[in-house]
Amino acid sequence: MSDLQRDVERLHARYVHALDSDQLEAWPEFFTENGRYRITTAENEARGLPLPVLYAEGRAMLNDRIASLRHANIYEPQRYRHMVSAVLVDRESDRLVKSTANFLVVRIMDNGESLLFASGRYVDRITLPDLKYEERVVICDSRRFDTLLAIPL
Amino acid sequence: MSDLQRDVERLHARYVHALDSDQLEAWPEFFTENGRYRITTAENEARGLPLPVLYAEGRAMLNDRIASLRHANIYEPQRYRHMVSAVLVDRESDRLVKSTANFLVVRIMDNGESLLFASGRYVDRITLPDLKYEERVVICDSRRFDTLLAIPL
Amino acid sequence: MSDLQRDVERLHARYVHALDSDQLEAWPEFFTENGRYRITTAENEARGLPLPVLYAEGRAMLNDRIASLRHANIYEPQRYRHMVSAVLVDRESDRLVKSTANFLVVRIMDNGESLLFASGRYVDRITLPDLKYEERVVICDSRRFDTLLAIPL
Repeated sequence: MSDLQRDVERLHARYVHALDSDQLEAWPEFFTENGRYRITTAENEARGLPLPVLYAEGRAMLNDRIASLRHANIYEPQRYRHMVSAVLVDRESDRLVKSTANFLVVRIMDNGESLLFASGRYVDRITLPDLKYEERVVICDSRRFDTLLAIPL
Repeated sequence: MSDLQRDVERLHARYVHALDSDQLEAWPEFFTENGRYRITTAENEARGLPLPVLYAEGRAMLNDRIASLRHANIYEPQRYRHMVSAVLVDRESDRLVKSTANFLVVRIMDNGESLLFASGRYVDRITLPDLKYEERVVICDSRRFDTLLAIPL
Repeated sequence: MSDLQRDVERLHARYVHALDSDQLEAWPEFFTENGRYRITTAENEARGLPLPVLYAEGRAMLNDRIASLRHANIYEPQRYRHMVSAVLVDRESDRLVKSTANFLVVRIMDNGESLLFASGRYVDRITLPDLKYEERVVICDSRRFDTLLAIPL
């Protein structure tokens, strides 16, 4: 039980390293078979609006998402850097953990400049003992947010 | 003893999640009854100038600070995101721990843009076993720093 | 063994606090006697180009690097803030640990503005039980990168 914090932090770390290393095809593997991935904004969350910016459920949809990114992204690959901080872990049951964490994503542009691309909170439900995301909700701070061509957050 | 690092990191995590979720009224609860909160700049620290940018001592003053923020802040709530990193924990005595950590705060503007609002160090004295801040010193890197209307760092 | 994650995170934390506190002379002490320090770009790494932006091997070279920084830096000291996140630790042998971590460095300018100076990955080999860097490779995301007068990353 005392290793739960470390296990969850390691899961988050592996997740962001996969994204930042352009190993996008590994992304669905971090979710359970029916895992849900949702991007929303803090404004929508606060107003109780269920409308997400992006929604995918199940590995097939997650795989589709990556496939269309690969198809659309005919130019130079995008580069991102994810930072994760302040990971709060709370066990909900024998097989479920809730995790809340802050994130910040830097996007590196072609001209060499870096910009703050996104910040917000990950709110996750993680299964035990296999440590997969049953649900990952990405709550972005900004309401102006272009995820059309972006890699997963 | 081996859980001290984790306990301190969890305290920092709960603190920043309270601020970033606009639960400002919970903020004084992270301090001891006579706890001290001080914001200063790295320049002032280096010169040994005791003059803080902001100083509050005891929960009554901390509560006042929040009350005036709530009063002044009649418009849309401000949104911030705190990142904490590189937490160094050293036990000073049976009932006191010293913690040093780096932080970075992103401010999300109304127009959707994000900017680096502040960076610096938290230097804390934390009581055991209740894990409250007896002293939190926020040493900001930049000398140009407007905290008048800002939420706590 | 279960403290390895914590030990490595503490090493990284001490490293960045030394740099951010302008204790540059302590920097070589984080390396083994023959330790290697290399800054490269993600682009060079991806292309397999061995050409580093900066290379130093052994404490004498690391000390030289600091000495020339001190000599060149006749003006106000530069101020940086390092954030480290997503630390992955894997034991390679009885005496060697591999660590991968994300970093982000903020530079604080004289006029009080802060900017994203660098982001990327630390890929380290760390010796046991003394916890020194046998090799620290700093892989920067951006290809446009001025380290001539910069403090170590």
